[in-house]
Amino acid sequence: MNTDVDVAVVGGGIIGLGIAWEAIRRGHSVALIDPDPAGGATHAAAGMIAPASELHYREEHLLRLTVDSASRYPEFLFSLAWTGVDPGYRRTGTLVLALDGADRTALADLQTVQQRNSLSVQQIPLREARRSEPLIGPAATAAFHAPDDHQLDPRRLAQALIAAVSERGRLVRRRASGIERTGNRVTGVSLEDGTFVGARHTVVANGLAAADLAGLPCQLPLRPVYGDILRLRVPEALQPLLTHTIRGLVRGHAVYLVPREDGTVVLGATMREDGSSAVSAGGVYQLLRDAQQLIPAVAELELVEVLCRARPGTPDNAPLLGGVTGTHNLVIATGFFRHGVLLTPAAAALCVDLLEGKPGPAEQERYKPDRFEEGRAWRS
Amino acid sequence: MNTDVDVAVVGGGIIGLGIAWEAIRRGHSVALIDPDPAGGATHAAAGMIAPASELHYREEHLLRLTVDSASRYPEFLFSLAWTGVDPGYRRTGTLVLALDGADRTALADLQTVQQRNSLSVQQIPLREARRSEPLIGPAATAAFHAPDDHQLDPRRLAQALIAAVSERGRLVRRRASGIERTGNRVTGVSLEDGTFVGARHTVVANGLAAADLAGLPCQLPLRPVYGDILRLRVPEALQPLLTHTIRGLVRGHAVYLVPREDGTVVLGATMREDGSSAVSAGGVYQLLRDAQQLIPAVAELELVEVLCRARPGTPDNAPLLGGVTGTHNLVIATGFFRHGVLLTPAAAALCVDLLEGKPGPAEQERYKPDRFEEGRAWRS
Repeated sequence: MNTDVDVAVVGGGIIGLGIAWEAIRRGHSVALIDPDPAGGATHAAAGMIAPASELHYREEHLLRLTVDSASRYPEFLFSLAWTGVDPGYRRTGTLVLALDGADRTALADLQTVQQRNSLSVQQIPLREARRSEPLIGPAATAAFHAPDDHQLDPRRLAQALIAAVSERGRLVRRRASGIERTGNRVTGVSLEDGTFVGARHTVVANGLAAADLAGLPCQLPLRPVYGDILRLRVPEALQPLLTHTIRGLVRGHAVYLVPREDGTVVLGATMREDGSSAVSAGGVYQLLRDAQQLIPAVAELELVEVLCRARPGTPDNAPLLGGVTGTHNLVIATGFFRHGVLLTPAAAALCVDLLEGKPGPAEQERYKPDRFEEGRAWRS
Repeated sequence: MNTDVDVAVVGGGIIGLGIAWEAIRRGHSVALIDPDPAGGATHAAAGMIAPASELHYREEHLLRLTVDSASRYPEFLFSLAWTGVDPGYRRTGTLVLALDGADRTALADLQTVQQRNSLSVQQIPLREARRSEPLIGPAATAAFHAPDDHQLDPRRLAQALIAAVSERGRLVRRRASGIERTGNRVTGVSLEDGTFVGARHTVVANGLAAADLAGLPCQLPLRPVYGDILRLRVPEALQPLLTHTIRGLVRGHAVYLVPREDGTVVLGATMREDGSSAVSAGGVYQLLRDAQQLIPAVAELELVEVLCRARPGTPDNAPLLGGVTGTHNLVIATGFFRHGVLLTPAAAALCVDLLEGKPGPAEQERYKPDRFEEGRAWRS
C-alpha cells in the first residue's frame, strides 16, 4: 500500500493538533490537514481545565475521562516546552459564586454530586472568598472553592502545538474533502485541490466539518451550539482584577470570567442553538450584565474582542470518539462540545492507543462514533 | 508668493472634507491633507441631522447654525450626486421615547424649549407611535415626534466627498505637522515628511489633532469626549426593525437607534471623559440595556461592530470656527463635539465665505477660535 505517512489527521483544532502531537511523540510520521489551524472553536475557547465545575447532571459518565485528562495536562504541556511557547497554564483554582437563593441551592446540590464523585469542591465563607478576590461584588451570596480546576490559554497552546507539528510532522494547509477506502480499510484523505494524502491510519478530528466529509462509514450526528465570548482588557490601575477563575450562577444564568497572565479576562459563554453564527446582541448584553453582578468592576474594563463560534454538540453531549465497527484504520474524534480543551490530552492518548492496536478504556463503548446508528442505539 | 493651491485644508474628517468640497465648487483650487481621511470621529458618527432633538440646554445659541445647516443639506448632497455615491439621506423623522416619570418630565420640559425656539416637536399618543413603529416595547411611557429630524450615513457621505475632492482637487494622504507664517500671514502647511503645501488660505479642520499643530497663533482648548457606538445587523425576519430614528431617555440615560437602508442599525452613544480611547465594557452594557428598554427586539440583532472614537469638545461646547484676530489667511474649524455631521454644510459655507472676504453671520463672534485667550474671555 502506498502511504505518505503513518497517521493523517483531518482537522487542526485543539483536538486534532493534540492527536497529531501525541502520535509524533510516540514515533509515528504524521500529516495534519487544515486550511486554518486553530481558527474555529479553539480560537474562542476559554481554556478551563475544570472537571469539577464543568460537571453537569447526566454527564457523570464523562467524569473518568475529564479527570483523567486534567491529570495528564502537566506532562502533556511539559512535552511541548521545547517549542518555547508558554501556554499560560495557571493552577490558581476556581471560585463559583451564587447570586440569589435558587442559585445557591443549585450550587449546593451540585456540590453534593461533585463530592460524591470525589471532586474537590468546598463551600467557603464569602469573607474568605473576598480575601483572595476583593473585587467580588456585594450581590454574591455564596462561594464554592474548586482548588483543582485550572486553566490555560488555548490560543497559546494551539500555537505551541502548531509549532511542534510543523517542526516534527507535516502541516498541510488545505481543506480535506473526504476519506478514501479500499474495501473496509481507510487508505487516506483526499483534499479539495484533488491531491491525496495516503496514510496507514486516518483520524477525523475536524469538529463540525467532520459530518461533511465524503466516504465516512457512519453518520456523525453533530449540531452547532453557538457561543458568544468576550475578551476584556484590565486597565493598569485595576490589575490584577482576579487571580482565580470566577464562575457563577446569576439568577439561573451560567457565566465565567477567566483571568489571563497578559492582563486580559475572557468572559463567556452563551449557548445558543438558533442557527446564527453572528454575535448576538442579547448574548453580549447578558454576559456583561451577569458578570457585573459577580464582579462590578467589569464595567471598568475595555472590550477588545467579541466573538461567536460553534461548538460541535452531539445528541448525548458525549464525544464521538473511537473506531467504527466494520471499518479499519479509521479513528473518529469529534463532538467534544464544551470540553475540547479539557479533553485534549486524554482524547489524544486514546486515539493513538487505538491506532496502535492497544485496548481502549472500559467506558470507550459509550463514545463510539456509530452508537446512534440504527440497531446500535440500545447499546449506548 | 509661491502657492500651490488657493486653499489648503488640514484634516479629512467630515468637516474638512465639506470645506474642501465647498471651496472646490466655488472655483478654488484645493489641497486636502490627511493620512487617513474619514478615519476618526466621522467613522463612528451616527449621522443624525436633528437640530430639534439635538437641542441641549444652554446650547440654544447654536440653534441658528444647526437649523441653517440642516436646511442646507438637500442642496449640499445634490451637489455630490455626480459622484454616484448614495449618502443614505432619510427624511423619515425621529421619535423620542420616555421610560419613567422623570424621563417623561424632562422630555416635556425640553419640548417647551424646543417649541419656544420654533422647532417642530409634538407629543403623540403611544398607540400612534406604535402604529408606525410596532416594535416599541411596553416600557415606553411617552412619545414625542420630531418630523424634521433626519439622518444620513456619514461613512457614505465621506466616501462621496473623498471621491469629489480626489476628482476635482488634490487629496494629500500625509500628516500635517504645522502651519507656516510670514509675519502675520499664514502661507501654507508643512507636512511630516518635510514637504510643504503653499496656499493662499489655510483651513485647520483636523479635529482634536488641531491642538498639536505647530505655528498656530492661539491655543485651541480641545478635549476628547469619548463615545462607544455599536453597529447591529437586523436579521431578515425582523426587517425593517425601525423606519424612524428612535431616541430615548431611559432612566436619565440618553440612547439612540438609527436605522440604515442596508439593514443595519447604529446604537449610540456614550459620553466619557475618562481619557480612555478603548471601548468601555460598561458603556456597551449600558447601550444594550437601554436600547432594549425602548425596543426589546434589539436582543435579537447581530452585533457586527463595536467602536470608540473621541469627539473634539470645547469649554463651552460651541465650535472653534472662524479667523484669529491679528492673523491673516487662516481659518480654524474644529471643536464640533456632537455636531460635526449636522454642522458640515453651514461650517463649510461660513469658512469659504470668510476666506473669500465675505462677512460672516452676526453670531460668528461666539465661535471665534481665540475667544478663550486671556483678555478676550469677557467678550465670548
